[in-house]
Amino acid sequence: MIDLRSDTVTRPSDEMREAAAGAEVGDDVYGEDPTVNELEARTAEILGKEAAMYVPSGTMGNQIAVRAHTERGQEVLLEEECHTYKWELGGIAQHSQVQARTIDGGDRGVVRPEQVHDGYVEGDDHRPGTGLLVLENTHNARGGTAIAPERIDEAARAAHEHGVSVHLDGARLFNAAAALDVPAARIAREADSVMTCLSKGLGAPVGSMLAGSSEFLERARRIRKLMGGGMRQAGIVAAPGLLALENRDRLHEDHRRARKLAAGLEDAPGLSPLEPETNIVLVETDDPAETTLERLRERGVAGSAFGAHTIRLCTHWDIDDADVETAIEAAASL
Amino acid sequence: MIDLRSDTVTRPSDEMREAAAGAEVGDDVYGEDPTVNELEARTAEILGKEAAMYVPSGTMGNQIAVRAHTERGQEVLLEEECHTYKWELGGIAQHSQVQARTIDGGDRGVVRPEQVHDGYVEGDDHRPGTGLLVLENTHNARGGTAIAPERIDEAARAAHEHGVSVHLDGARLFNAAAALDVPAARIAREADSVMTCLSKGLGAPVGSMLAGSSEFLERARRIRKLMGGGMRQAGIVAAPGLLALENRDRLHEDHRRARKLAAGLEDAPGLSPLEPETNIVLVETDDPAETTLERLRERGVAGSAFGAHTIRLCTHWDIDDADVETAIEAAASL
Amino acid sequence: MIDLRSDTVTRPSDEMREAAAGAEVGDDVYGEDPTVNELEARTAEILGKEAAMYVPSGTMGNQIAVRAHTERGQEVLLEEECHTYKWELGGIAQHSQVQARTIDGGDRGVVRPEQVHDGYVEGDDHRPGTGLLVLENTHNARGGTAIAPERIDEAARAAHEHGVSVHLDGARLFNAAAALDVPAARIAREADSVMTCLSKGLGAPVGSMLAGSSEFLERARRIRKLMGGGMRQAGIVAAPGLLALENRDRLHEDHRRARKLAAGLEDAPGLSPLEPETNIVLVETDDPAETTLERLRERGVAGSAFGAHTIRLCTHWDIDDADVETAIEAAASL
Amino acid sequence: MIDLRSDTVTRPSDEMREAAAGAEVGDDVYGEDPTVNELEARTAEILGKEAAMYVPSGTMGNQIAVRAHTERGQEVLLEEECHTYKWELGGIAQHSQVQARTIDGGDRGVVRPEQVHDGYVEGDDHRPGTGLLVLENTHNARGGTAIAPERIDEAARAAHEHGVSVHLDGARLFNAAAALDVPAARIAREADSVMTCLSKGLGAPVGSMLAGSSEFLERARRIRKLMGGGMRQAGIVAAPGLLALENRDRLHEDHRRARKLAAGLEDAPGLSPLEPETNIVLVETDDPAETTLERLRERGVAGSAFGAHTIRLCTHWDIDDADVETAIEAAASL
Repeated sequence: MIDLRSDTVTRPSDEMREAAAGAEVGDDVYGEDPTVNELEARTAEILGKEAAMYVPSGTMGNQIAVRAHTERGQEVLLEEECHTYKWELGGIAQHSQVQARTIDGGDRGVVRPEQVHDGYVEGDDHRPGTGLLVLENTHNARGGTAIAPERIDEAARAAHEHGVSVHLDGARLFNAAAALDVPAARIAREADSVMTCLSKGLGAPVGSMLAGSSEFLERARRIRKLMGGGMRQAGIVAAPGLLALENRDRLHEDHRRARKLAAGLEDAPGLSPLEPETNIVLVETDDPAETTLERLRERGVAGSAFGAHTIRLCTHWDIDDADVETAIEAAASL
Repeated sequence: MIDLRSDTVTRPSDEMREAAAGAEVGDDVYGEDPTVNELEARTAEILGKEAAMYVPSGTMGNQIAVRAHTERGQEVLLEEECHTYKWELGGIAQHSQVQARTIDGGDRGVVRPEQVHDGYVEGDDHRPGTGLLVLENTHNARGGTAIAPERIDEAARAAHEHGVSVHLDGARLFNAAAALDVPAARIAREADSVMTCLSKGLGAPVGSMLAGSSEFLERARRIRKLMGGGMRQAGIVAAPGLLALENRDRLHEDHRRARKLAAGLEDAPGLSPLEPETNIVLVETDDPAETTLERLRERGVAGSAFGAHTIRLCTHWDIDDADVETAIEAAASL
Repeated sequence: MIDLRSDTVTRPSDEMREAAAGAEVGDDVYGEDPTVNELEARTAEILGKEAAMYVPSGTMGNQIAVRAHTERGQEVLLEEECHTYKWELGGIAQHSQVQARTIDGGDRGVVRPEQVHDGYVEGDDHRPGTGLLVLENTHNARGGTAIAPERIDEAARAAHEHGVSVHLDGARLFNAAAALDVPAARIAREADSVMTCLSKGLGAPVGSMLAGSSEFLERARRIRKLMGGGMRQAGIVAAPGLLALENRDRLHEDHRRARKLAAGLEDAPGLSPLEPETNIVLVETDDPAETTLERLRERGVAGSAFGAHTIRLCTHWDIDDADVETAIEAAASL
Repeated sequence: MIDLRSDTVTRPSDEMREAAAGAEVGDDVYGEDPTVNELEARTAEILGKEAAMYVPSGTMGNQIAVRAHTERGQEVLLEEECHTYKWELGGIAQHSQVQARTIDGGDRGVVRPEQVHDGYVEGDDHRPGTGLLVLENTHNARGGTAIAPERIDEAARAAHEHGVSVHLDGARLFNAAAALDVPAARIAREADSVMTCLSKGLGAPVGSMLAGSSEFLERARRIRKLMGGGMRQAGIVAAPGLLALENRDRLHEDHRRARKLAAGLEDAPGLSPLEPETNIVLVETDDPAETTLERLRERGVAGSAFGAHTIRLCTHWDIDDADVETAIEAAASL
């Protein structure tokens, strides 16, 4: 099976497995795991922030950020298709008791500064007031769009003008950086906190990173404990994570293959691929998405449903050029 | 001062004051206040529901309803300018830990059935699922618009098709009923619960009513206790409330005066009144709203700000025809 | 029926009813109800605090106080039989997300300073830290015990040594003051906030007061809005409340009658009254409490169950000496 | 440094490291990681439950259990020194909005059935009602006491008589099983859910298991997602976990060494060791605990503070007989 459902299905390389086996470890709940400490320091450096923290999942990273930046009852501005709002089980209301106010970021999920100004609410006796702006880059549900740093900057600055903090959900931040050919730190520059995943295109088996100021991380660590995210000899999974961080350049390959896949699907009957910006190819389907997925599956190709008539196909490091060709052929025979 | 800020400023009539003084009372926390019991029975009858409950405020009525209809983490569909979402301090996240999903109801705040279908989310491993639709009629922030029962029906039916409950914030439900010349029960027919205020155009000093099925009310009573809404010899304020319920026909007068006021303001310099549907007149202002309000205030007329360049003027039973004329003259002299 | 179930069943006097009818009112949500303002100022003065706020119930007053004094996750120290912990539907966890740590105050419900020191928890990475101490006086569930100001002082000072705030649930504070023959302000002196009810022995139909520093009250007003406790022309019920405040001396009568009742029940078959300190008489029963209550009810006397073999009888201003004698005779005939 | 602070500091064996490197993996968020699936099946079998789930930490396992068993506002009965109440940042109030009611389990932390009956609260209009009993075995804060299955059974049965569920915090359940020479499943028999840690005495680097009925686990999986506990190729850490499960018999060695350590400390100046039941040795100190710990540390032995005059020393698989002897000598020289 050629598995294009998600880049989360990547399996660790032999090098990562060896790193896991050989990792120097300690009790990270005491801050004594040298591999975790190295991973956190290296991530902070790459993201251009003072400090970083290892968490079991991107969802936990986002939810900790929302909680650490807000007070109960405040409003959080989010793009209406972003992961934090859409796919985290209403976590912002459950963990942080904050109210969502959504912004329509259009086809590419770009939040414009005037939308931030419009959405901003001053707290008073009746209104909770805005506490946080959440941005996402690449934007998953909008088709892996890579949003230019200037767009992130100006939305973030609009928030800062009102004293509102900014969290960047960069689950696939390094895909954005590769696509735009800028350092990840440049994209995250104006964000007060940024989350990125080691376990998607970078290929690590487990974990995500939350970065920001030292003061922010201090609060975040306590919330991680509350959420049950404190792990012990986490160096075993942090070691492959360290190698994953150095896979950033490899993402160009995934993006090239995504473009190749999209181009190859243009002639497939009943399929209309959108032009991919990174490693995610959204394809509109004449038949219902589930029907199309089932037929592809019979032909050895797995994708995921993204709407009634939309499927998502992701390239990642377990997918090579031959896999892409096979997938194109499978689609052609539908 | 001619006080057009809100219809909440109405002072009780002499008749209401006498009713307060003479009310038969008991301990309502034990369900033994005969006046409260009568008010609840009479309200249920007027609203066409099995049962009703007296609460200290409309905000409490709405918040109890959201809590009683939902489970933690679920989504609630609300028109984006509705009171429950906008002016209740993020209560739905704080009291009920639910996530808002807003619908743009346009100039009149009307939620269309296809918007309910679009906004509906099926619960799964990543998505919280929709638990409730909140409608508002008249719609305050949209200018006191009176939404036809058929519009409410079809939005409610769309929700019910998905098994989603419907709460109607009818803080000014009787204004809608008067404007549309239908019984309030007709408007609330498809709603699973409905809240209405005794203390706005109807003129009661204190309190609102939450109505619905007996089973719903049983849960709601426990939540009222949790919220601290249980009052003792509440008959003292329920008695004027009973009289207020019979003031429903009087609202036609307020509406007539609102139309007269809007018409009279058309020639006022720098003011552009919108056509009122009930007792609320929104007026766009060339100058900043605060400046205009201040100048009106110097001329003996009080209104409230409703946006950077919008003011709100409400008619109510402390406002007579002479007051309206004076207000028009004051505006003409700006 | 001689109703000794609770002092909450008191019905307002003719004087109070007249005050309700004649009250000068305004919209209290705008802070414009002169009667409410007067009630708040007078209460603050009597309780020796900077400011006070009118709330619909004692439960709301207590819950607002817990919320205003704490942060999510903190611990709250409470006597294990106190109202805030036992009879408010787990509100402190629901409204404030704080964790209860209980103290056994013994037969009289007195919290000793060493218990505060023992119960205090310093916040760290694993422990939430203590945010508040809640005291109650008179202590309802312990039989209306009137706790001396020095006992309140020393418990409060123990909390303050750790930087922990103190809330006094004084639902029946004026009963304590009458019994101990000290001003209520003296008892509340070391408490950072104090709640007292107008609707129990003082006889007002509706409402309680929350007092404290002006800064505390500012936060508390916003939380009252969140809870739905904002009322409009509340002067109608605040006016009887003002009269109720001047009923403080009358409580001596209730206490005298409670002592008379307890003494009279000593010879009743199957009943063992405890010595009352204020207006609450706890009576241990040989038969199950419910059986005893039913037999008393057949004889025209109503009480309430307080345990499997304990009943509670309250004196209040609808109970006169003749009622007490009748009740004693009824018990004698069991 | 001979590290006796906690059994959480254990480092994985070479065999575990090899298992990590060679683990067959998949995306566990899709339920496709064969190693995780095997670990969950094997754990369920060992614990005698229908199903089990891998979580990043014991805290997350406990908090998910509390949430899955209760409704907002309910009470949870817990031994007053148990981990779930004491060291999880007030999580039960924060994640589940439930109210703690504590039971004094005495020196050994044993909850007696009559205490469960006494602590049980029937839900009504004022009282939240009891939703869960949490037990802990071995009981960490009481000195690693191994509580006999019959004690667990009878407490659990008392809860079940009232329809109350039972969660067993078995972070060190296998220590209890080894000490009592019974299968772990026997101890957990009457519990509706049980959490156990792979990362303490069993030596796995990361993770804990939550077991119970299939229906319970279904709810628990959704809550794990909400908490951010879903991990991707978790087989890398599940593989050492599988080996850890087979280390159960090895715990006898830790217990033997703990007894040896305690015996050896009896003659140490200023130290009074308690008789250990498992791998935890509590030692009362004449000097302040921190002073004693510092002096031990200068002599190459690390322990942890457990009270003002109590320290905790844990044996585990990185501690051999020679380490114990060295520690005894260090203490003798204080």
